[in-house]
Amino acid sequence: MKNILGREIPDYIEGYGKVKPFNGASASYGIKTKSKVKLTSVKPGDKKLLSSINEALDKVKIKDGMTISFHHHLRNGDFILNNIVYEIAKRGIKNIKIAASSIFPIHEPLVEHMKNGVVTGIVTNYISGPVAEAVSRGYLKTPVVMMTHGGRPRSIESGEIHIDVAFIAAPTADSYGNINGVYGNAACGSLGYAVPDAQYADKVVAITDNLVPYPACPIEISQEYVDYVVKVDSIGNPDGIVSGTTKIAKDPVGLKIAQMAARVMDASGYIKNNMSFQTGAGGTSLAVAAELEKIMKDRGIVGSFAAGGITGYIVDMLDEGLFRNLFDVQCFDLKAVESYRDNPKHQGMGGSMYGSPSNKGAVVNNLDVMILGATEIDTDFNVNVTTGSNGIIMGGSGGHSDTAAGAKLAIVVTNLVKGRLPIIKDKVTTITTPGESIDVVVTERGIAINPKRKDLIEKLEKSNLPIITIEELKDKAEKMTGKPEEVKFSDDIVAVVEYRDGTVIDVVKKVLG
Amino acid sequence: MKNILGREIPDYIEGYGKVKPFNGASASYGIKTKSKVKLTSVKPGDKKLLSSINEALDKVKIKDGMTISFHHHLRNGDFILNNIVYEIAKRGIKNIKIAASSIFPIHEPLVEHMKNGVVTGIVTNYISGPVAEAVSRGYLKTPVVMMTHGGRPRSIESGEIHIDVAFIAAPTADSYGNINGVYGNAACGSLGYAVPDAQYADKVVAITDNLVPYPACPIEISQEYVDYVVKVDSIGNPDGIVSGTTKIAKDPVGLKIAQMAARVMDASGYIKNNMSFQTGAGGTSLAVAAELEKIMKDRGIVGSFAAGGITGYIVDMLDEGLFRNLFDVQCFDLKAVESYRDNPKHQGMGGSMYGSPSNKGAVVNNLDVMILGATEIDTDFNVNVTTGSNGIIMGGSGGHSDTAAGAKLAIVVTNLVKGRLPIIKDKVTTITTPGESIDVVVTERGIAINPKRKDLIEKLEKSNLPIITIEELKDKAEKMTGKPEEVKFSDDIVAVVEYRDGTVIDVVKKVLG
Repeated sequence: MKNILGREIPDYIEGYGKVKPFNGASASYGIKTKSKVKLTSVKPGDKKLLSSINEALDKVKIKDGMTISFHHHLRNGDFILNNIVYEIAKRGIKNIKIAASSIFPIHEPLVEHMKNGVVTGIVTNYISGPVAEAVSRGYLKTPVVMMTHGGRPRSIESGEIHIDVAFIAAPTADSYGNINGVYGNAACGSLGYAVPDAQYADKVVAITDNLVPYPACPIEISQEYVDYVVKVDSIGNPDGIVSGTTKIAKDPVGLKIAQMAARVMDASGYIKNNMSFQTGAGGTSLAVAAELEKIMKDRGIVGSFAAGGITGYIVDMLDEGLFRNLFDVQCFDLKAVESYRDNPKHQGMGGSMYGSPSNKGAVVNNLDVMILGATEIDTDFNVNVTTGSNGIIMGGSGGHSDTAAGAKLAIVVTNLVKGRLPIIKDKVTTITTPGESIDVVVTERGIAINPKRKDLIEKLEKSNLPIITIEELKDKAEKMTGKPEEVKFSDDIVAVVEYRDGTVIDVVKKVLG
Repeated sequence: MKNILGREIPDYIEGYGKVKPFNGASASYGIKTKSKVKLTSVKPGDKKLLSSINEALDKVKIKDGMTISFHHHLRNGDFILNNIVYEIAKRGIKNIKIAASSIFPIHEPLVEHMKNGVVTGIVTNYISGPVAEAVSRGYLKTPVVMMTHGGRPRSIESGEIHIDVAFIAAPTADSYGNINGVYGNAACGSLGYAVPDAQYADKVVAITDNLVPYPACPIEISQEYVDYVVKVDSIGNPDGIVSGTTKIAKDPVGLKIAQMAARVMDASGYIKNNMSFQTGAGGTSLAVAAELEKIMKDRGIVGSFAAGGITGYIVDMLDEGLFRNLFDVQCFDLKAVESYRDNPKHQGMGGSMYGSPSNKGAVVNNLDVMILGATEIDTDFNVNVTTGSNGIIMGGSGGHSDTAAGAKLAIVVTNLVKGRLPIIKDKVTTITTPGESIDVVVTERGIAINPKRKDLIEKLEKSNLPIITIEELKDKAEKMTGKPEEVKFSDDIVAVVEYRDGTVIDVVKKVLG
């Protein structure tokens, strides 16, 4: 079977199940059902505070075959996923499925657990480091399911993925299960991605290293969703919580691309009062924000909101009055955490509110401009941020496809060539985000506009921006690098890439050799 | 059939259905299910803003037999319930069931709609004024179902009551359905009681007179739950939003009772650091807060939280540092609204988090002391706040039974005699809250302790408080008033009083003559 993008995908994938093929970014809207939830009610006098992770594992009756979930707000500083799986492994339990909103290099111990059958399934929106590599090498028994930041809450809410136990790393909690991320040694700010887990898991365990007297205000996740609370010495390393990617580009190429992207936004007519904006936390993407900041200041423009994972750069724009509000699903640095804690204009949002296509309207739907990165782009504007050009998994959508689908103007900013490899290709190794959602590709050597955006082509042709076709951009890249060698794959599927609506947009196969 | 309190209740009540008899305050804890939710997803570009209530009625396909819901945060200033039902009536629609968290005198127009069959069912937690009187006279086709503030969200979440359309009066909203109650002409603060309606109704319509640019931060109810937004000229009269009952008692009897109640709290050992406290908004109840305030200040005590409907008096205690936090499901006055808006220690909560017995632990579960009012109390400590001694409905539980069930010390404060009628009786006209949840009754002529609280009796006997039995208290009252005449009722059931778990604790029959 081929899906609408021409990708060969089996009807049925062993260890995944029946495939719903991707059928276009807008194909799945309509009547949706949020799943029922079973819980055990808590009566006056009941206690939730347990003495150890082991006691929690007893209480939730952990057993073979369960799906357990984690949020990734502690990023590469997270201790909780490793500690929980370690304790589970010690019990001789097998066949655990990990539903983690993202997986980082710190989660390397999972590789051993994959090899010995403790962990046989992973569902995640982003995966990098040793675990990603091990998946690509075929060490996980079933294909990893790659979701999006909006697709995961959709899947959880719909009941497609059922979480038996959610383990919520809680920077601050009280003994009755109220949680916030704004205080404590591992303060990470918004806990947006943990919200659906708390709401829909059969059992919810909060794990904290900062147990405070009741109530742990401001409450981000409420006692009404939490079964048990465990106090541990440390839930994470603050140094790893702040993402290493949140540094603004200083190199001339990155800055040039950022300036061009800002000019594209301007020429397209999107820089105006009440505009909304989101950018990734990569260096070039952040540099676009800096360019936008200059223009907004110069012209006295006040935008509606900036959204996303929030960095200090975006907080500055709020503080300068360039946006009325921020929507924050995840704080990337301490400045963002403090602003989220102290400024009521800095509004939190759960993962569903951020990006689900199956609720009554996600925040991404209201984005004017989204600045995105890419590992590869093809001449149909399909974007890969899942695998490297070597075929190895090194990321995933995160909010890429969600924001691209929602934004009126989705701009990919990228160097034309990276590490002597062309970024624009005939076919991307893996499709993460469909080309229909991408409007413009900005590189230092030219700008390509998606042909379906005739309105944009018309506007931008009037500018003196270097507009060329995506094919011309590809040719330029290949002239610099030569045509790259094709990566060789086996037939074994190691990852199923779900679009935000749960259809399969692509699969990743095991790399040969 | 008699329930555990000896109340005669049919197995089946016409217009209500099969009866689950009340079987004790703790009988229903255990495994619970939250209902699934059906919704229509909203895609990028879709608009939610409609031009009129009539357009909204078209969009939600309003029709005979539907259940429509309302919150009561605008109290006796609410225009929305009347306006919606007016438009529905104009369409010739019949058999509407109103699920309103409370009903006030301003809702008098419902009486006509009841008489002409537009409205044939009412589910509410509190009902006063002409509608209550009309129900008592038998004008509603089916018995009104009286729930509690915690029982209503339980019922909605469980699917027992299914809301077809929730109409949410929104003091501030944006065109995409984000709502807050802290700005606008009809600012009412917390929108806690509207939360389950937004989450579980098939369709949700926000009606606002303060449409602001997106996003309407701070968001209390999110766009992910709202289908449509309607802008009207006015959603309510601010004068009616501030409850008339929130004036502290100045009369010597009220003050004496308050002082005695505070001494009971003290002698019982509940006035100490980390204590939690809630009081009703009646004059004597508020006077207890004032007494507590003095003691806490004198002794340098810092409590954990105060909860409930919040008044300026309680805000003062927060501001003075006497409590670390407030939990607010409803603001009773402007000072509470402003504090809720500006002070992050003043935490909002939804109706379920406040009082549902079927989630993972409501805030009421953590109450140390609850100060309650009463219309009647019987010698089993059962309390009536549903009907007057004349048998006419004049209130309802609100949070009475929820807080009484949760609090470690539930104190009823009341004059022994009101309007020449005794408050303590052999049998209350209607049981709202079971005696097992009431620990102490404080009157100006004596204090009765529930015999099951042997610990309290022991502690309080050591004080020089006037402890007597409830029977003695009853005798004292009757000596002053004589034995009151029995009210005569027909056999027609006009109200079914549900305990917070959905069992039937009592019924109200039509008054004869």
